[in-house]
Amino acid sequence: MSNHKFQCSSCAWSCESSPIILECEKCSSPLNVRYLPQTSANIQPTGWSGHTIPLPLDHQEDLITLGEGNTPVVQLNNLKSRIMADIYVKQEYMNPTGSFKDRGTSIMISALKSMKVDELVEDSSGNAGASLSAYAAMSNMTAHIFVPESAPVPKIGQIEVYGATVHKIPGTRDATTDAAKTFVHDNQLVYASHNLSPFFIEGTKIFAHEIFREFGDNIPGDIVIPVGNGSLYLGMWKGLCELKESNHISHMPRLHFVQTEAVKPIYSAAKGRSWDVSMIRETRSGGTAVGSPPRQGEVIEVLTRSNGSCVTVTEEELADWQKILAAKEGIYAEPTSATALAGAEKLVRSDSIGKNNGILVPITGSGLKDDQPK
Amino acid sequence: MSNHKFQCSSCAWSCESSPIILECEKCSSPLNVRYLPQTSANIQPTGWSGHTIPLPLDHQEDLITLGEGNTPVVQLNNLKSRIMADIYVKQEYMNPTGSFKDRGTSIMISALKSMKVDELVEDSSGNAGASLSAYAAMSNMTAHIFVPESAPVPKIGQIEVYGATVHKIPGTRDATTDAAKTFVHDNQLVYASHNLSPFFIEGTKIFAHEIFREFGDNIPGDIVIPVGNGSLYLGMWKGLCELKESNHISHMPRLHFVQTEAVKPIYSAAKGRSWDVSMIRETRSGGTAVGSPPRQGEVIEVLTRSNGSCVTVTEEELADWQKILAAKEGIYAEPTSATALAGAEKLVRSDSIGKNNGILVPITGSGLKDDQPK
Repeated sequence: MSNHKFQCSSCAWSCESSPIILECEKCSSPLNVRYLPQTSANIQPTGWSGHTIPLPLDHQEDLITLGEGNTPVVQLNNLKSRIMADIYVKQEYMNPTGSFKDRGTSIMISALKSMKVDELVEDSSGNAGASLSAYAAMSNMTAHIFVPESAPVPKIGQIEVYGATVHKIPGTRDATTDAAKTFVHDNQLVYASHNLSPFFIEGTKIFAHEIFREFGDNIPGDIVIPVGNGSLYLGMWKGLCELKESNHISHMPRLHFVQTEAVKPIYSAAKGRSWDVSMIRETRSGGTAVGSPPRQGEVIEVLTRSNGSCVTVTEEELADWQKILAAKEGIYAEPTSATALAGAEKLVRSDSIGKNNGILVPITGSGLKDDQPK
Repeated sequence: MSNHKFQCSSCAWSCESSPIILECEKCSSPLNVRYLPQTSANIQPTGWSGHTIPLPLDHQEDLITLGEGNTPVVQLNNLKSRIMADIYVKQEYMNPTGSFKDRGTSIMISALKSMKVDELVEDSSGNAGASLSAYAAMSNMTAHIFVPESAPVPKIGQIEVYGATVHKIPGTRDATTDAAKTFVHDNQLVYASHNLSPFFIEGTKIFAHEIFREFGDNIPGDIVIPVGNGSLYLGMWKGLCELKESNHISHMPRLHFVQTEAVKPIYSAAKGRSWDVSMIRETRSGGTAVGSPPRQGEVIEVLTRSNGSCVTVTEEELADWQKILAAKEGIYAEPTSATALAGAEKLVRSDSIGKNNGILVPITGSGLKDDQPK
């Protein structure tokens, strides 16, 4: 008997865990994993020892790992005066394929493999595709990765080197998603979408548990995350909720998110402003460039519940921050990560974040995966 | 009072620790750190808790870190039948700048900074240069990095993004070293050479201590390392000696090394064959392409003392292994790391390594740092 069910993110509908059910049959909302009482199998993530983290797996041997997670936290001493607050980064680019996506992929692939899935389809601007391709390779699964034709050359190359079949799609990021869904339907395959699979967030939530291991009950009061569809933002919240419910932490930090001026659907919705995909502009922040994020409603709910703020940044601001982070702190981040730092600075300057509670920002991916900054 | 001295690697000469002394005044051999009895300051490396590792620092605050080390170990299940032995890799590319060099750089920069050094020169085919550039940036030091003009574009780009001054030198790898040394002399600067600084190996030796933390006294019996100048090979040995002397391990593994057919000075010397830099050929394995390795004698001594073997591999073999490792195990390694895997396979097939003791290989650097494999 499985230790979990799938639960609709917005209504009461639920169903048995499945590799092919990705939305609510009643209201079409995305699904999440809900653990059943007293069925925890007590599986430990890679390198973890400590309190129990619920995972949607039945046996420790089901865990497929390349050594993801357990990333270090570094304080940015040289940028403290510029940001005007204590600022910490969690080095998520120090994951096996160079981004935090490996956390979600590890758990998603583990769950799907344990359900005997052996062929997968995913669409990704790059990081999630590379991640899925790597984990599929080492677990002997066939992977089809749909990418926008405009994705950075190093990211596409990385997907190819792991042996996945790469499908390059012209047009917007959303066109890539549509092409992947059509391919899934036509070939009766499993859509291992990092945006939709309920398993993915079960991996990204481990980020929150590691922050607790690092800081104990003194987690920085403000956490600033770049958001495309919100898999890290929502995982962070889920992990924090687990920590709060198990009395490991006494209070919740505020979760803020950052998008770019170029692609800002969730920001616009949170601010009550109109926005649609026809307004998409080119951006170097590939990880936040999701025009129609299926989990938008969940992101806005967490924003409200955590009393967070949101902000957008320009291409110039994120480009500047990519260079600043490398030259002042020795951290070569992908533009998406620089977006979060640029946003954190703006949130402090606008007094949306206080100066005294500490700020934590994930460096979501490696600069080596993108075209070099000019 | 410092907790260490510099000791000649081949004669009895020793001196006080210094940022500018890099060779023995009697016999010109490279120097190593020798700890003085009962002066250990008990500094812990990043993320370490456990037995004491001697480090050449006086205060914990002297440690300059980007979160290096603590890399995961992964077993290669899909390649076990091909290699015909249990094989483990330590994911050294999951370091802050994407290679194991960060271990050495962290300790070297920490020691030099504590001696008030603020401007450095280094020569590097790429990885060590990027590493030094990153750590110099975050510790407010000025770095000059000399690289061969032929180094991979992504590696040079990475050095530049951290803000170091890059000096591109035509000709051989050794010409780059000569140019760096001339620049050091003409400008009276500190030569922070990963090949020569005694501090560098004090960082790479932590690799061995982590392997002990992972395996206890059951460390794999055969460890296969790609060698250019041997900073990881010699660090591994030094760490193992510390573990043996402190009775943490009861027996020493065998340390094997791999070079390429294109650049094989240490292999040739170990086999008693003639070789000189005029015989250098082009290779994608940049990390092993050191024509005149200053620590060659030390490498051969460790080879003998550990009862190790050595082997060379061709460009075709290392290129194949780079692809195999990505497509079968989801690990995108730089060509230098593939060299070690190709060598491990050859050593097993030639019965130089037994099939029953386990093999461990470091994945020294990320494939993202090189030109993409064809």
